Amino acid sequence: MLQFRKIAVVGAGNVAYTLCKAMKDKGMNPYCVFVRDAGKVSKVSEDLGVEAVSDYEKVLQSDLTIIAVNDDSISEVASHLIDYKGLVVHTSGTKPSAVLNRTRRYGVFYPLQTMSKNREISFDQVPLLVYANSNEDLIKLKEFASIFSKKAVVCDDEQRKAIHLAAVYVSNFTNVMLGIGDGLLQEKGLSLDIMKPLVMEMMEKSFVKSPKNALTGPASRGDFATIGEHEKMLSYHPDELAIYMILTDYIIEKYHKNEEL
Amino acid sequence: MLQFRKIAVVGAGNVAYTLCKAMKDKGMNPYCVFVRDAGKVSKVSEDLGVEAVSDYEKVLQSDLTIIAVNDDSISEVASHLIDYKGLVVHTSGTKPSAVLNRTRRYGVFYPLQTMSKNREISFDQVPLLVYANSNEDLIKLKEFASIFSKKAVVCDDEQRKAIHLAAVYVSNFTNVMLGIGDGLLQEKGLSLDIMKPLVMEMMEKSFVKSPKNALTGPASRGDFATIGEHEKMLSYHPDELAIYMILTDYIIEKYHKNEEL
Repeated sequence: MLQFRKIAVVGAGNVAYTLCKAMKDKGMNPYCVFVRDAGKVSKVSEDLGVEAVSDYEKVLQSDLTIIAVNDDSISEVASHLIDYKGLVVHTSGTKPSAVLNRTRRYGVFYPLQTMSKNREISFDQVPLLVYANSNEDLIKLKEFASIFSKKAVVCDDEQRKAIHLAAVYVSNFTNVMLGIGDGLLQEKGLSLDIMKPLVMEMMEKSFVKSPKNALTGPASRGDFATIGEHEKMLSYHPDELAIYMILTDYIIEKYHKNEEL
Repeated sequence: MLQFRKIAVVGAGNVAYTLCKAMKDKGMNPYCVFVRDAGKVSKVSEDLGVEAVSDYEKVLQSDLTIIAVNDDSISEVASHLIDYKGLVVHTSGTKPSAVLNRTRRYGVFYPLQTMSKNREISFDQVPLLVYANSNEDLIKLKEFASIFSKKAVVCDDEQRKAIHLAAVYVSNFTNVMLGIGDGLLQEKGLSLDIMKPLVMEMMEKSFVKSPKNALTGPASRGDFATIGEHEKMLSYHPDELAIYMILTDYIIEKYHKNEEL
């Protein structure tokens, strides 16, 4: 590692684990992992053999500190790094970089991916959004990110905020749509699995052709007979019906290709 | 082909084309393809070398007729097949099988997939939902479907209607979420492509763990500070804000894991 020789990671969650794992996979040995509660055995130190510490002494000797904790805890961690000489970055999609501005050199290292226990992520395809308050550090951080990912992207606070908001729609809300579908199918003794080829093809198609050009279905073709039938079927599901109606209206208003309606 | 020796396809659209292509790929030669407008050169006959006809004489000599036309045209096609001796099926997700009940032997052959020009579908993984008004035909139709797909599923009208409704959520409405994300990113000079790894991982995870268990994001963790910020960012997008609010409320009400809120 030319950019940073001693890398400290702060946190004991999925992001901290995934980052340390990615470094190990690239032949790097994280300098230490900071875990607040020393009594809590860290999966990072146990599985990956990274030294766990619970005071900041060793962290302060590193070149790069990656804060991988909940958004609300970033400031608390930062308060221990005021005299830090290295570069400190957080991994949050929403927090501005300036939450770290009591340290001289700061930035962001945000992996745009959902991480959870028991699902291993290959960083190779994960966009890593980087930012730093100096050009020199930004170059180093982007180089560092490029070791892990083919998509290291420089991104300012405003762009990162837009990405995080967009992610709510394209990740959380799409998930909710699958959840509603799941419920409707279960009522008829069917499993959501039957929808997987359709869902995956529609997603692929949306990225290839753009969502707008890939859209199909009753609202997109102005098929009010089917819409009416669906609304009747949903009459015992008022919350799901309300969602059906608002999204159908949205499509009809914004997406409609056929002016004949 | 033991189940059906002479197979006629009615229609000139994507579904008709994809079905004929699938048959050819399995070494079967569709008996004929009916195209209403004889003057209109059919892609099916041109690309695949299937005989195109525009009167029903030859169709009436087949063993199986697959009606692959718009929902609203099914009845009109069926009116020509009243004395038909073979099995007639439609390919619609919404129309009841009984729309064909003036013919003695009828049923449904519904490929649960989105089909469009310029995207070739492998039928192998596409669920084929079959139904027939006699047990004997149902067995034959299921065997026929199994030639093309690993997922030939017997499905009555009620189940098929539920599947079609669920498909609006899991396919059309997920697409709308990508469309909104796309718009928000474009405003900041970013491309939707950056979201692809996140979207695909979230979809995979939702099928593996169930949507409910895969959900992440501000609403799922009751993070009202982030929700408030997102709502502020959307203040110039009232339609998208309304969608954000209804879906956030839905998650908080239905999905919330953490009672501490």
